[in-house]
Amino acid sequence: MKKSSAHPFFDHLNQFVTISEKEFEIIRSYFETQNQKKKQLLMKANSPCDQIYFVLKGCVHMYFLTEKGTERTVQFALENWWITDFLAFQKQTNTHFFIQAIENTVVLSVRYGEYERLLHDFPQLERYFRIIFQIAYGSSIMKMKYLFDFSKEEIYFHFTEHFPEFAQRVPQYLIASFLGLTPEYVSEIRAKKRS
Amino acid sequence: MKKSSAHPFFDHLNQFVTISEKEFEIIRSYFETQNQKKKQLLMKANSPCDQIYFVLKGCVHMYFLTEKGTERTVQFALENWWITDFLAFQKQTNTHFFIQAIENTVVLSVRYGEYERLLHDFPQLERYFRIIFQIAYGSSIMKMKYLFDFSKEEIYFHFTEHFPEFAQRVPQYLIASFLGLTPEYVSEIRAKKRS
Repeated sequence: MKKSSAHPFFDHLNQFVTISEKEFEIIRSYFETQNQKKKQLLMKANSPCDQIYFVLKGCVHMYFLTEKGTERTVQFALENWWITDFLAFQKQTNTHFFIQAIENTVVLSVRYGEYERLLHDFPQLERYFRIIFQIAYGSSIMKMKYLFDFSKEEIYFHFTEHFPEFAQRVPQYLIASFLGLTPEYVSEIRAKKRS
Repeated sequence: MKKSSAHPFFDHLNQFVTISEKEFEIIRSYFETQNQKKKQLLMKANSPCDQIYFVLKGCVHMYFLTEKGTERTVQFALENWWITDFLAFQKQTNTHFFIQAIENTVVLSVRYGEYERLLHDFPQLERYFRIIFQIAYGSSIMKMKYLFDFSKEEIYFHFTEHFPEFAQRVPQYLIASFLGLTPEYVSEIRAKKRS
């Protein structure tokens, strides 16, 4: 068995707070490991949102279906990032979103009751999640600025330049969806740039 | 002097965590009270973002200037809500945003170093801010869904129906800006609805 210090979640937590190996062994026990094949769903719309997910390996996206039945991506998560419908999770209600694996993916998941118990038992994780959500909220305000300020072409190239890992790993039609663009438009501006 | 239990910030904190009156007296000392006249700026673009603000009374908005010089609102804060450029605050960098009072406003403000010291001294506030940011982040994902899913008309009426206090207190052109609409468009659909 691997030493816990080699666990990516252990290393990740210790970038923000101090967790000993012994504490980590207990923290780890609050989580389940889920292996998801590419295209599999971790969460479905119109069902209770009772879990949050931490990506250990792979990539997922969260999307909803528009009235016309089109998938619209609102969030991605690569390694070391959290994803769920945090509002439905907080309120313990049904979600409007789906979460789907874009690659074969391994996530840690924790249910609401366990999450609350974990935070109670390890108050340093209140600090960890406070920092994570502070950054996530700040980033979402910045995304709003880009959506309002940039032309569609600028939005696309800004995103792919600032997040090259996404541009390499995530299919173009999902990046287009996340940025509020059509796949045809993205093909067009990419072709224009190449020529 | 009023008893601290009558302080709206005390009542607000105790909706999420348990703070005694004695603790509150100390917590209160980390903050400054700022009185802002309508239209006054609390934060300016291209300057360090070193403070977060809690609205005690009144209303503010955070906006940026587009390349064409138009103000675009990305966030509002009424009573009992926090506002700043959280990403610049976290990274301690310059901000791209302005924060301006929409009415005569009273805010509590805390600087970065004091905020960190406060969280260190009162770990229950890590929990408080974790919950606040979890809700704020979850709400921002939901806003993204509305922007992508709804027609412009639906966005406007959804917002004014769900947040009637904003619709009453905030000028229409700022609500339009926040929702990515033009003031002319909002006038048009409001007139259409009345007729």
